[in-house]
Amino acid sequence: MSSFLDYNSTKTLHKLAEDPIDLTHKGILTPDRTKKMKASALNLTLFYGTERVDQKVLDALFSLATDAKAIEKMHQMQSGAMLNTIEGYESEDRSVLHTAMRDFFAEQNEDPIAKEASALAYQELEKLKGFLEGIKDKEFTDLIQIGIGGSDLGPRAIYLALKAFAIPGRKVHFISNVDPDDATSVLNEVDLKKTLVVVVSKSGTTLETLTNEAFIRKKLEELGISPEKHMLAVTGKDSPMDDPTRYLESFYIWDYIGGRYSVTSMVGAVMLGFALGMEKVLEFLRGASSMDKIALKEDPKENLPLLSALLGIWNHNFLGFPTCAVIPYSQAMLRFPAHLQQCDMESNGKQVDKFGHKVDFQTGPVIWGEVGTNGQHSFYQLLHQGTGTVPIEFIGFKDSQYQNDVEFKGTNSQEKLLSNLFAQSIGLAKGDQNENPNKNFPGNRPNRVLFTKVLDPYTMGAILSYYENKIAFQGFIWNINSFDQEGVQLGKVLANQIIDIFASSKSDKQDEKAFPLANTFLSHLKEVD
Amino acid sequence: MSSFLDYNSTKTLHKLAEDPIDLTHKGILTPDRTKKMKASALNLTLFYGTERVDQKVLDALFSLATDAKAIEKMHQMQSGAMLNTIEGYESEDRSVLHTAMRDFFAEQNEDPIAKEASALAYQELEKLKGFLEGIKDKEFTDLIQIGIGGSDLGPRAIYLALKAFAIPGRKVHFISNVDPDDATSVLNEVDLKKTLVVVVSKSGTTLETLTNEAFIRKKLEELGISPEKHMLAVTGKDSPMDDPTRYLESFYIWDYIGGRYSVTSMVGAVMLGFALGMEKVLEFLRGASSMDKIALKEDPKENLPLLSALLGIWNHNFLGFPTCAVIPYSQAMLRFPAHLQQCDMESNGKQVDKFGHKVDFQTGPVIWGEVGTNGQHSFYQLLHQGTGTVPIEFIGFKDSQYQNDVEFKGTNSQEKLLSNLFAQSIGLAKGDQNENPNKNFPGNRPNRVLFTKVLDPYTMGAILSYYENKIAFQGFIWNINSFDQEGVQLGKVLANQIIDIFASSKSDKQDEKAFPLANTFLSHLKEVD
Repeated sequence: MSSFLDYNSTKTLHKLAEDPIDLTHKGILTPDRTKKMKASALNLTLFYGTERVDQKVLDALFSLATDAKAIEKMHQMQSGAMLNTIEGYESEDRSVLHTAMRDFFAEQNEDPIAKEASALAYQELEKLKGFLEGIKDKEFTDLIQIGIGGSDLGPRAIYLALKAFAIPGRKVHFISNVDPDDATSVLNEVDLKKTLVVVVSKSGTTLETLTNEAFIRKKLEELGISPEKHMLAVTGKDSPMDDPTRYLESFYIWDYIGGRYSVTSMVGAVMLGFALGMEKVLEFLRGASSMDKIALKEDPKENLPLLSALLGIWNHNFLGFPTCAVIPYSQAMLRFPAHLQQCDMESNGKQVDKFGHKVDFQTGPVIWGEVGTNGQHSFYQLLHQGTGTVPIEFIGFKDSQYQNDVEFKGTNSQEKLLSNLFAQSIGLAKGDQNENPNKNFPGNRPNRVLFTKVLDPYTMGAILSYYENKIAFQGFIWNINSFDQEGVQLGKVLANQIIDIFASSKSDKQDEKAFPLANTFLSHLKEVD
Repeated sequence: MSSFLDYNSTKTLHKLAEDPIDLTHKGILTPDRTKKMKASALNLTLFYGTERVDQKVLDALFSLATDAKAIEKMHQMQSGAMLNTIEGYESEDRSVLHTAMRDFFAEQNEDPIAKEASALAYQELEKLKGFLEGIKDKEFTDLIQIGIGGSDLGPRAIYLALKAFAIPGRKVHFISNVDPDDATSVLNEVDLKKTLVVVVSKSGTTLETLTNEAFIRKKLEELGISPEKHMLAVTGKDSPMDDPTRYLESFYIWDYIGGRYSVTSMVGAVMLGFALGMEKVLEFLRGASSMDKIALKEDPKENLPLLSALLGIWNHNFLGFPTCAVIPYSQAMLRFPAHLQQCDMESNGKQVDKFGHKVDFQTGPVIWGEVGTNGQHSFYQLLHQGTGTVPIEFIGFKDSQYQNDVEFKGTNSQEKLLSNLFAQSIGLAKGDQNENPNKNFPGNRPNRVLFTKVLDPYTMGAILSYYENKIAFQGFIWNINSFDQEGVQLGKVLANQIIDIFASSKSDKQDEKAFPLANTFLSHLKEVD
């Protein structure tokens, strides 16, 4: 199999990148261009007329998708092929089946693509439905989700994004950090008597999560509340956490669900079911699954995740921009960029390809972002006039969620929000000449806009899947394994060595093998006061 | 005056950067090195043995500070010289006096550096003290701060960082975004009868802030509550918002306080005074002012902000790393990186120097980050094994804030948190060889650790000032104006044009002059349903 740099399309793109279009040149950024350069799927439209691409670049990018067999690999992934692997080396050797967690909405007489995995997932959904009905007459007002990484970032981002649709009187909190102030601060906000606690760890061994579970369990016991009547587990079958004597209910996930792709599994669904009710959870899953089907389409003009993946590769590998900002113009999406940071950077921040060869091109970029309009009053100065270029993907919605608005100076807030979004997309691309060099805007800053009607459960599901599949496509094209995370192991090993020093110092034993550099820090601790 | 590239030290550094030390080479990363390479000031210690510097590089960096007259410019800034200017061009032409907002702690018989500005600021503090005493017997439980950018990010970050010290029963909320869902969502959480509302805008004309003020004012009136008994203004004297008939009290700021440097002015103090009480506000200011004095020291080994600025410039301009991550191992600091994103990127994301010449080197990097240990389960994969390198500044604390902890498997949570912090600093630098290329850690990833005892008001003030002064030093060395933000203007102008289209479409008028590209988006709005 060829590597990314060997494709003819890659060579063409490198040549085209020597002289890419300049969006500030006369006659380039015409209304005709921006009207033509858009693609739609489901209820979403992607405007990309403000990217530095012309038809030649698009054609070469589409060839790249073909050369890299992007759609074939997406089919393989959704069907359950063992894609989480490095050939010739010890690796996780797993399927990648998060798309099966939501594949329940096929036409009649049609099976889910990965029938068995979807059937298992559906059992858990049914179990959840029963559980939620069973607690209806119990007075649970709050739920604490204990988890970290994929068990925290995705669920938290989606909960905040859809909080406007929550069942009145129900609220969700998250404890993730091993910092004890995290748990203490959340405990100050809830009445544990009325609180469900969901503990999420696929392996059942995540240090932070088990520690925080012990923290809450102790608190419950101190208050005379039986933990097993308040605590739920989301974990792998037969993990150390799969213990019915300790939990009110256990919900299962499988090793073919990566943490960062687990929001639509029980990792997100239990919490969302409590907050929003089952009907809205199903809407969310339906949105995600519908976009998974779009990700199977051959034509990149219909396949939004693929189109976005290709535009991202153009900006990163060919134009050489090292980061990518995601900026939703929606306050409810305030933690969605943090979720994408994990989903993208943990998936594609890799140094070897699927054969274990060190890559000689850039893999995943740094992903960052905040919501607009807030970012405009923060880092946009650098986006417009900095010496580096940051490609941006904006996300926008025609309507607000609460439909509660105020008219001020002739427009309402939603209209002001949209005006700012459109203005930024245009302004970054077109720039503005000024004789005062400090007021000059070079422009030519690539961006695209993903636009839809309103941030509701279905749409949130579709947007989530759009990004999950975009990330997978970039990995397919770079031919890397986007589904493991060996890069987190060294930190774990070293941390455990230092934890052992802390533990043994109490019993007056010294661990001679522990890494001596840690002593610089540890001896400093004794001086700090 | 010379430009950054003309200094002899810059030339030396470029040469040294051709063959910088590799932290993974045998004999480099010794305990002796990490013990020596630290610098302390106040209660803070900066460990930088895990940066890619040796004595030659440090000497050249220290010469760079001398060549660029960094300390002289810091003196000028703190004394009130007109540093916010571009020579020969229309510019803001202002002093930069945020340090005067906290310069109340000089030794006896010693004056504040900028006497007049500090005297004015102290008047406002006295006014605030009186105001807070006056509301003691009124039952205000909540405060909403309405502001955006510097009136939001800094205050919000500091409130969250110090929430552990809040007066029991008092809570602060923030409305920033013009997205109407932001205000609605906050209104769902408070009882307006018991709520103070602080509206913050220096100019008194910030669109988002005035819109959200109108939103809340309307709500108060609907509930039969007099807005002028609940609303406070923080604004410039004689701004359109300086209107005693509309506000219970007005607190002043001045044009020499940049929004992103305004946390220690009334922009942050009113809200913090309500939440924490005056005594803790003064502690916070004392910490900031103490670090401002440190920033005046000639020796970079004593001047932590300068040392950090120089290390950042080494990583960015000489080793060529385009971003910089700030990762506090403290859940309470969860929004501090977002504050720094504004403070740094809006200050130093510039394209011209102080003479209006286009710079031919990189100015401010992209700043991003989340708290640890959370980040370890998110983007650390890319930090350890990605194809790009991200320099990191870690922040750590010996003790937790609440001192409420749990022992689990032989250590408490705070010890686990510290173990992880130390492990990451070491692991990123030293790497780890493995025959399996996917489990190989290249290492040599530069980072430093800012460490202290506990995140209390004094320390938070010192850390805030450390970063503010670090950012100012980098601007001084690059010889750019870190105190204006002309790059946000174009977006405002275009947004107002589009807002006018929205407004006129209601009265069936069409604005022919408005930028035609906006029509692509606007006509799309009619199709979305």
